[in-house]
Amino acid sequence: MFGTMLYGPGDVRFEERPEPKIEKPTDAVIKLSASCVCGSDLWPYRGANEVTAPLAMGHEYCGVVVEVGSDVKTVRPGQFVVGSFVISDNTCPHCRFGFQSSCEQREFMIGAQSPYARVPLADGTLVATESQPEEDLIPSLLAVSDVLGTGWYAADAARVQPGSTVVVVGDGAVGLMGVLAAKQMEAGRIIIMSRHKTRQDLALEYGATDIVSERGEEGIARIKQLTKKVGADSVLECVGTQESMNQALQVARPGSMIGYVGVPHGVQFDGQSLFFAQVGMLGGPAPVRRFLPHLMDLVLTRKINPGKVFDLTLPLADVAEGYKAMDERRAIKTMLRV
Amino acid sequence: MFGTMLYGPGDVRFEERPEPKIEKPTDAVIKLSASCVCGSDLWPYRGANEVTAPLAMGHEYCGVVVEVGSDVKTVRPGQFVVGSFVISDNTCPHCRFGFQSSCEQREFMIGAQSPYARVPLADGTLVATESQPEEDLIPSLLAVSDVLGTGWYAADAARVQPGSTVVVVGDGAVGLMGVLAAKQMEAGRIIIMSRHKTRQDLALEYGATDIVSERGEEGIARIKQLTKKVGADSVLECVGTQESMNQALQVARPGSMIGYVGVPHGVQFDGQSLFFAQVGMLGGPAPVRRFLPHLMDLVLTRKINPGKVFDLTLPLADVAEGYKAMDERRAIKTMLRV
Repeated sequence: MFGTMLYGPGDVRFEERPEPKIEKPTDAVIKLSASCVCGSDLWPYRGANEVTAPLAMGHEYCGVVVEVGSDVKTVRPGQFVVGSFVISDNTCPHCRFGFQSSCEQREFMIGAQSPYARVPLADGTLVATESQPEEDLIPSLLAVSDVLGTGWYAADAARVQPGSTVVVVGDGAVGLMGVLAAKQMEAGRIIIMSRHKTRQDLALEYGATDIVSERGEEGIARIKQLTKKVGADSVLECVGTQESMNQALQVARPGSMIGYVGVPHGVQFDGQSLFFAQVGMLGGPAPVRRFLPHLMDLVLTRKINPGKVFDLTLPLADVAEGYKAMDERRAIKTMLRV
Repeated sequence: MFGTMLYGPGDVRFEERPEPKIEKPTDAVIKLSASCVCGSDLWPYRGANEVTAPLAMGHEYCGVVVEVGSDVKTVRPGQFVVGSFVISDNTCPHCRFGFQSSCEQREFMIGAQSPYARVPLADGTLVATESQPEEDLIPSLLAVSDVLGTGWYAADAARVQPGSTVVVVGDGAVGLMGVLAAKQMEAGRIIIMSRHKTRQDLALEYGATDIVSERGEEGIARIKQLTKKVGADSVLECVGTQESMNQALQVARPGSMIGYVGVPHGVQFDGQSLFFAQVGMLGGPAPVRRFLPHLMDLVLTRKINPGKVFDLTLPLADVAEGYKAMDERRAIKTMLRV
């Protein structure tokens, strides 16, 4: 088969790859229904993470099980499944605590920008649907795997409550999913910082009540004004730069929580500033597995439509263009037809 | 009257001071029933905070109201009151959110290592008892004002739950109060890091289930062993150095919360490390006012005895020796008879 490899900054290749097979008795192999490019794929693509060896790209996935290892008990060939971008056994103490993304057996999914992929620890990682989902739901089910699960975790970590005031920093796909999550959690006010018309429109559709297009000090001042100088009850930091984190800290009210899901790059916190700001923080790779059943149900019952976040769809063979379009912010998120 | 001033590192003077009087209509003046030295007083005493002008020391207090300003409505002369070390109006949005220590009108109490003290924003800050408390309860009521309130906040911020595993970093007075708080919140296991026999004994009396006397890597390894490699559900960081914070981070399980109440001195966090550790953090000056009624009730009904944390009692005139004893760790906490 052909799959996606990253050789270095800007160097995405769609090339011959070995067919995935069962390597351990706990594995499954799935045929992907669709794949996509993640905002976090752009870190190595842009050279922000060093690439020392070619990387098998792609960690968001849903599809049909084609084969399972001898120890797999909860999924079987023919079933439609969604999994988290973090492989987990779902039985260790960290998993039982709801933090499957820190599973004792944690692995990060790879190689999903391909027609087939191997999923380790299939019993812990995959959740099957009762029947084959309708075709038009595939983008939304794919979104659950990472981008929605991550936005949801940001809102959960930031402890969004009914009626509360939420600020979302970052209008990438995860930020937009954060808006959707905050809306589902019945936030009273959802302010997103966004300068791009198409993203603003989608944010409004997902439930944003206010758009702040100013950045930096001006953006902070605008949010202070919107919240009568109080600040937000919950802040979702969905970028991962020092600038975006400072923005989050400045608009968070004392006693609020910042849920941060953008992988921090070069971000430092000063202990004493954080102390006197009295802002709570919880971040990390999203424990999507915790949310999978609920989010899949919301999609299957058509209560949410996270799949709209894919505003560019390309054949898998054009994956390099998919990266490029996101890098140049021509696309929010690229779906790949397999 | 004579009161306590700090002129510079190690230079505590008990000297003639003006009698406090009502300066604003929202003030009260109280006659202190007792005063004490705070661990945080040792930062400037030790030169860790610069002293640019003489400081009127003392911010923990309880006593009898002698005079109130014309706007004060909820306390009256003759009443016994306890207040927080942070002055707050208890009506602003931050106060109503439970974070009175970030009140829009916040001031930090000063001048309480004296026979009399002025308390600004008396209505918001002070809580009166129904009647004069029995004399032997004075140390515990004094403790509520800061040291207990702060330890309690650490446990609250760290979200201690019934049955959960708690690690307390720091065996100073605040750490010991953190043990007491965790016990009241029905933690299942309370591990304190302590190397001092008298503090270990008091920790055990307050409800600690395990003492870890090792420090650094060894201490971390010991806690990992005690928690079957999982780490703690909640960590109370009650020191404020980089070393103690690292200790807290290393023993906190993914998804746990660290409540940090030691004022950070020279503490930095790396965003990416914090992200992948997936540890939550909430700190700051304790919103003691939120807890005052409950904690005063626990003391008045003799359910808790935080006053035992005072293991040295001196006349107010010997306040300099009180600082010295704490600085040299001969005393956990010094109470001053006024």
